[in-house]
Amino acid sequence: MRILLTNDDGIFAEGLCALYDALCQDHEVFVVAPEAERSAVGHAITLSDPLRVKRVKRGNVFFGYAVNGTPADCVKIAIHELIGPEIDLVLSGINRGANVGINVLYSGTVSAATEGVILGYPGLAISLDEYKEPDYCFAAYFASILVDFLAQNFLKNPKICLNVNIPFLPANKIKGIKFVRQSTAPLIERFERRVDPHGNVYYWQCGERFTEQDPDTDVVALKRGYITITPLQHNLSDPELLSKIASWQIEF
Amino acid sequence: MRILLTNDDGIFAEGLCALYDALCQDHEVFVVAPEAERSAVGHAITLSDPLRVKRVKRGNVFFGYAVNGTPADCVKIAIHELIGPEIDLVLSGINRGANVGINVLYSGTVSAATEGVILGYPGLAISLDEYKEPDYCFAAYFASILVDFLAQNFLKNPKICLNVNIPFLPANKIKGIKFVRQSTAPLIERFERRVDPHGNVYYWQCGERFTEQDPDTDVVALKRGYITITPLQHNLSDPELLSKIASWQIEF
Repeated sequence: MRILLTNDDGIFAEGLCALYDALCQDHEVFVVAPEAERSAVGHAITLSDPLRVKRVKRGNVFFGYAVNGTPADCVKIAIHELIGPEIDLVLSGINRGANVGINVLYSGTVSAATEGVILGYPGLAISLDEYKEPDYCFAAYFASILVDFLAQNFLKNPKICLNVNIPFLPANKIKGIKFVRQSTAPLIERFERRVDPHGNVYYWQCGERFTEQDPDTDVVALKRGYITITPLQHNLSDPELLSKIASWQIEF
Repeated sequence: MRILLTNDDGIFAEGLCALYDALCQDHEVFVVAPEAERSAVGHAITLSDPLRVKRVKRGNVFFGYAVNGTPADCVKIAIHELIGPEIDLVLSGINRGANVGINVLYSGTVSAATEGVILGYPGLAISLDEYKEPDYCFAAYFASILVDFLAQNFLKNPKICLNVNIPFLPANKIKGIKFVRQSTAPLIERFERRVDPHGNVYYWQCGERFTEQDPDTDVVALKRGYITITPLQHNLSDPELLSKIASWQIEF
């Protein structure tokens, strides 16, 4: 397959390289990724500033293109300018840290996969549930298994977008795969107020914690040791509410 | 009502001020908005940098808080730190330019309203379909009508999130209100390649055009002269695909 590989941790991130190495034997892998970390950028795109592209080597060998934009920018410019439209899969990751629950909305990793689907390609986002000391060995192995499975079973569906999260456990402790919905339960979050050495107040956004309890959600299944696979869509309309409000009479 | 007002064009944007003026007689309006334009940032939030907050005056009177973050950041910090949880509505706009179709995903304006709903408040995003020479007079008037309608009819539903787009037409040319779904048809987009005076290549992302034809979508209804109202949700799971793939056997 011809795979476009991107992420939101930047082109030099360990997770992206691990995924590249796991796939490059069997597939043609094209790397177009942010030049530096662009986490939590959601589905941001860059319209007010120009995009610049640099060719990046790994050792002495050409590795891919680094873009001064967001993950969604990378997918767009890859397909429209750098690689061309002959792509079979848009793959994003491996992200350092899980992308489950409400955080899916904030995730640059997931948005790159969604952008793939918007442009007509299957999208796949892979994240590892460990931020501090990640080891991508098993996650990259599983990703390659999944890519091969999809290639044989499902990749003729350009509308498929899968968000995959992998627990950070030894392979024999992983309980299996669960196909689950995205949790929409709120996070417990807080801002930490500090004062800088010049006497000015600033805030760190932090302290999030999930409140979800339903075992059939990505949040809980991942926490319990399952690999979670959540199919995503990007139609934000609420059809139920739409039929409810269609009778409103608003005079103006 | 107690209304939290934000936007993605920045606290000094004309559209936000017009909305403030249209509402401040009848409601308590709290302004917390980006210190400068943060368009197309989608649902980005700021985790790697601290947030700073400035008190902003209009004339000699306190007007609101300017934040060096995204629209979603503004909503979070407003409710968690600056204004407190006693809010009846999160209102975002009036945006300079429409937010319909796939662009809803990229919109900071819409994300602020969605963030309101995530935090448990009704959300309302208002955009005017004119970028070059907007006049917010009618849009602000209509927004105030809609806010009053919602206050009396619907605002006890904290899960409601409405994306409202207003055509840039004289009031008597507006054909009415349509309750429509978000278009998910692809955009035609392109990158313009240029060379800077130092010989370096850069790209402008531009040239988008809608391909949607269905009159029951936000894109087409707006173009035809209707005010469009689209109820939004933030559950990205695809339930249909979920039930299809639940039987997959992936060996690893």
